[in-house]
Amino acid sequence: MSKTVDLNADLGESFGAWTMGNDAALLDIVTSANIACGFHAGDPKVMTDTVRLCQQKGVGIGAHPGFDDIRGFGRRRILGMSGEETKAMLLYQIGALQAIARGEGTKVRHVKLHGALSNMASEDAAISDAYVAAAKAADQELIVVAMATTELEQAVLRANMAIARELYADRAYNPDGTLVSRGQPGAMIHDAEVASERVLRMVEEQAITAVDGSKIPTAGDTVCVHGDGPEALRIAEQIRTRLDKAGVSVKSFGAG
Amino acid sequence: MSKTVDLNADLGESFGAWTMGNDAALLDIVTSANIACGFHAGDPKVMTDTVRLCQQKGVGIGAHPGFDDIRGFGRRRILGMSGEETKAMLLYQIGALQAIARGEGTKVRHVKLHGALSNMASEDAAISDAYVAAAKAADQELIVVAMATTELEQAVLRANMAIARELYADRAYNPDGTLVSRGQPGAMIHDAEVASERVLRMVEEQAITAVDGSKIPTAGDTVCVHGDGPEALRIAEQIRTRLDKAGVSVKSFGAG
Amino acid sequence: MSKTVDLNADLGESFGAWTMGNDAALLDIVTSANIACGFHAGDPKVMTDTVRLCQQKGVGIGAHPGFDDIRGFGRRRILGMSGEETKAMLLYQIGALQAIARGEGTKVRHVKLHGALSNMASEDAAISDAYVAAAKAADQELIVVAMATTELEQAVLRANMAIARELYADRAYNPDGTLVSRGQPGAMIHDAEVASERVLRMVEEQAITAVDGSKIPTAGDTVCVHGDGPEALRIAEQIRTRLDKAGVSVKSFGAG
Amino acid sequence: MSKTVDLNADLGESFGAWTMGNDAALLDIVTSANIACGFHAGDPKVMTDTVRLCQQKGVGIGAHPGFDDIRGFGRRRILGMSGEETKAMLLYQIGALQAIARGEGTKVRHVKLHGALSNMASEDAAISDAYVAAAKAADQELIVVAMATTELEQAVLRANMAIARELYADRAYNPDGTLVSRGQPGAMIHDAEVASERVLRMVEEQAITAVDGSKIPTAGDTVCVHGDGPEALRIAEQIRTRLDKAGVSVKSFGAG
Repeated sequence: MSKTVDLNADLGESFGAWTMGNDAALLDIVTSANIACGFHAGDPKVMTDTVRLCQQKGVGIGAHPGFDDIRGFGRRRILGMSGEETKAMLLYQIGALQAIARGEGTKVRHVKLHGALSNMASEDAAISDAYVAAAKAADQELIVVAMATTELEQAVLRANMAIARELYADRAYNPDGTLVSRGQPGAMIHDAEVASERVLRMVEEQAITAVDGSKIPTAGDTVCVHGDGPEALRIAEQIRTRLDKAGVSVKSFGAG
Repeated sequence: MSKTVDLNADLGESFGAWTMGNDAALLDIVTSANIACGFHAGDPKVMTDTVRLCQQKGVGIGAHPGFDDIRGFGRRRILGMSGEETKAMLLYQIGALQAIARGEGTKVRHVKLHGALSNMASEDAAISDAYVAAAKAADQELIVVAMATTELEQAVLRANMAIARELYADRAYNPDGTLVSRGQPGAMIHDAEVASERVLRMVEEQAITAVDGSKIPTAGDTVCVHGDGPEALRIAEQIRTRLDKAGVSVKSFGAG
Repeated sequence: MSKTVDLNADLGESFGAWTMGNDAALLDIVTSANIACGFHAGDPKVMTDTVRLCQQKGVGIGAHPGFDDIRGFGRRRILGMSGEETKAMLLYQIGALQAIARGEGTKVRHVKLHGALSNMASEDAAISDAYVAAAKAADQELIVVAMATTELEQAVLRANMAIARELYADRAYNPDGTLVSRGQPGAMIHDAEVASERVLRMVEEQAITAVDGSKIPTAGDTVCVHGDGPEALRIAEQIRTRLDKAGVSVKSFGAG
Repeated sequence: MSKTVDLNADLGESFGAWTMGNDAALLDIVTSANIACGFHAGDPKVMTDTVRLCQQKGVGIGAHPGFDDIRGFGRRRILGMSGEETKAMLLYQIGALQAIARGEGTKVRHVKLHGALSNMASEDAAISDAYVAAAKAADQELIVVAMATTELEQAVLRANMAIARELYADRAYNPDGTLVSRGQPGAMIHDAEVASERVLRMVEEQAITAVDGSKIPTAGDTVCVHGDGPEALRIAEQIRTRLDKAGVSVKSFGAG
């Protein structure tokens, strides 16, 4: 039986007069788009345009909510928000994109947390629960993207929501399934050849190879790629090409 | 047959650490709440709390979107937005409140424009069409609050959306159904007794009495009252009391 | 010889259409005002009005910069800003108030950090150094308000800036000079009588009495009072009255 | 005697995670930089970095304040601000940049309004007066950039401030010295050759040639060039090259 995998990327990160990323090129590579919802990037017009592009390319539409921190691009940890505040902040963003999608005759199918809040949710059950509660309140059919072995994965399972387990093409893993910290040597994979072979192997083996050579079995429903800068785009392209060539079916995790 | 009317007011205008208005008191008077959606006032937490209060009091929930201008409270005209931008800006806000309402097990039933954008829509067909398109995209069952004789009324009718025609308790009318400008003498009605008798007459006669004594027939589905400051609240209370005493059925325009 | 002390409070925390605090009443009590600079509260118009009120009342003008977080009122810790970013963010705010003060024919004389950033600076030398560098770049004559025994005090001394050591009227102290955490019993002093006697004793003895009864010698140049709510205002009034009655000279720490 | 002229451009328009323009290239061409002050573009860190670049290149530092409208890039007219509000909004921005410049051991020498507010000031004496009052309050030695024949020019003269009269390299002029509206054919000059010869002639003749061939005498202290996109940058380069080759001294208008 042929293997199947989804490729996802962050899109719609332009803001007002400022352009970011290369959405048109990425949309020819990925099968799922995580669309910024106006709090850390994006705005109502950019969201609308991005939803349209996704429709044209048949790419799955996802909400990519984050901290209300346009100046910090959602990359700064903001402490001291209650679970109620976190849930309301995220539900607001998801709902905004849902309505924009409805306006274009389509719908939001998945949700993925952005930036610092994503990192915090991976480590913190209360934040994860607030986020998953927001996703469930928005639409209980939403598929939540989560990395295996995180608090977030547990929160999704607790809530009986659908989960898409995510792999990183360009990051090294520890034997316990966590990512090697960015500061460590070898944490990031910059070579397109290495990254694409690695992704193919993860998909075929349904396992991650950790830095010590051990195998961590994992579902691996979706692989995160990047489009910021020519190098990232080249890696993304090569991953897609490699998967296609190997006969892996690259398609949206939500598709039938 | 007994007459029926709705009373509406703007609520949920607190923001972050700042409190505005007297929502608890107003919710005992009105039957429809126009809830700020975070762009000119309100925030996700305030929106959630306000939706809950409306549920407890059985008050109809409405979205009150406006310009993205928290510093100007949405009261400053912002020129040069395209119809696409206006529609996206409003759909975003309505969708955010819809999701928050879903999260509380209820739904947004009506929509009313706020501030400077409301004034602009009354005069401008293109802005009204963009707004009505946003409302329709969010939910074609939404009831749009609009003043008679405005461009907005026409836009709602063009779109085949439900309309709730709005009367002002505290404003004088010209013979053509427009409001007497605030600068003019007698434009504002400050006396609670006068305002409440006037509202009762409008409801019973289904007509407005203009400044020259002429009658303008109008449906008058909902009457706008205010809660900013003790005087406004007193007028609102007296209107409610007067209507109740006269046997007018004060209830949500969306109620069965 | 008669004792001298300054009373300071946070002012100018209104924002756009929202009012906060009771600045007019507080300005009859305090001798130094910490004016919000538009990032966590305040706006250019509020800043201008507050500077004018301070001039009329002869109250010393201070900048009260904080995190760029109007939605969180500067009370949430935001992590991951570099020293360069922190310095630039604070210098921007101080400079804005300086220009507004110049426009009113006066000047900013002191600076006090707000909220979460103030707490972080108390504990973190790098943040304190960034902040003090901003103050020094703005005007090397600025007096920096700091609590004794904090990293901030050390940073001010390192930079050879003038310092005003601050005492809290309504907080209990540990024997090492730090504040008893808000969660602990007895951390906050709510009784106006107790607070005012306590302040008088601190000023007369130039020492703080800790929770275990031990005395911590301290300069105590300025005492922080609050005006949010009727209770806080009553405590502030009583402190002022008590100091006046005891013959303590209550005046700006920068005054000759 | 050799002619002298200044070239100015808008710089520092990046914001948070978003980059805009090609500041490094422009700084090799222009002699005056109009630095965004954080309200329509720029942020404290970008402002600091841009001031440093200007110092390194010997380019004159100017404040480029605008509307508080980061989402609209200051290009949307915002109506209904009082003169007091406008003055405070602009003084705040200028003061912020002044402090940042002080922190880098330099100073703000000129000021130029941005976007929609600039257009409004050209037409409206009250807005121009508010702006010039802000500039004067910040530093009465500031040089105000203004187009001849505008309300702004009159306001600068009324206030006895120094003025730098500005010419446009890429715009056609009406016989009365106003710009041909963008909608009109021939309003914009896209050819680098034409633009550079035109600027040289304006500088040498101290006059503008209007669309009907008539000459409008004008001082022409500074010429505005653009750097947004490769075409604009090429025109700016050619103007600089043409002026240098013709022996025109291209230098800051504030330089001795």
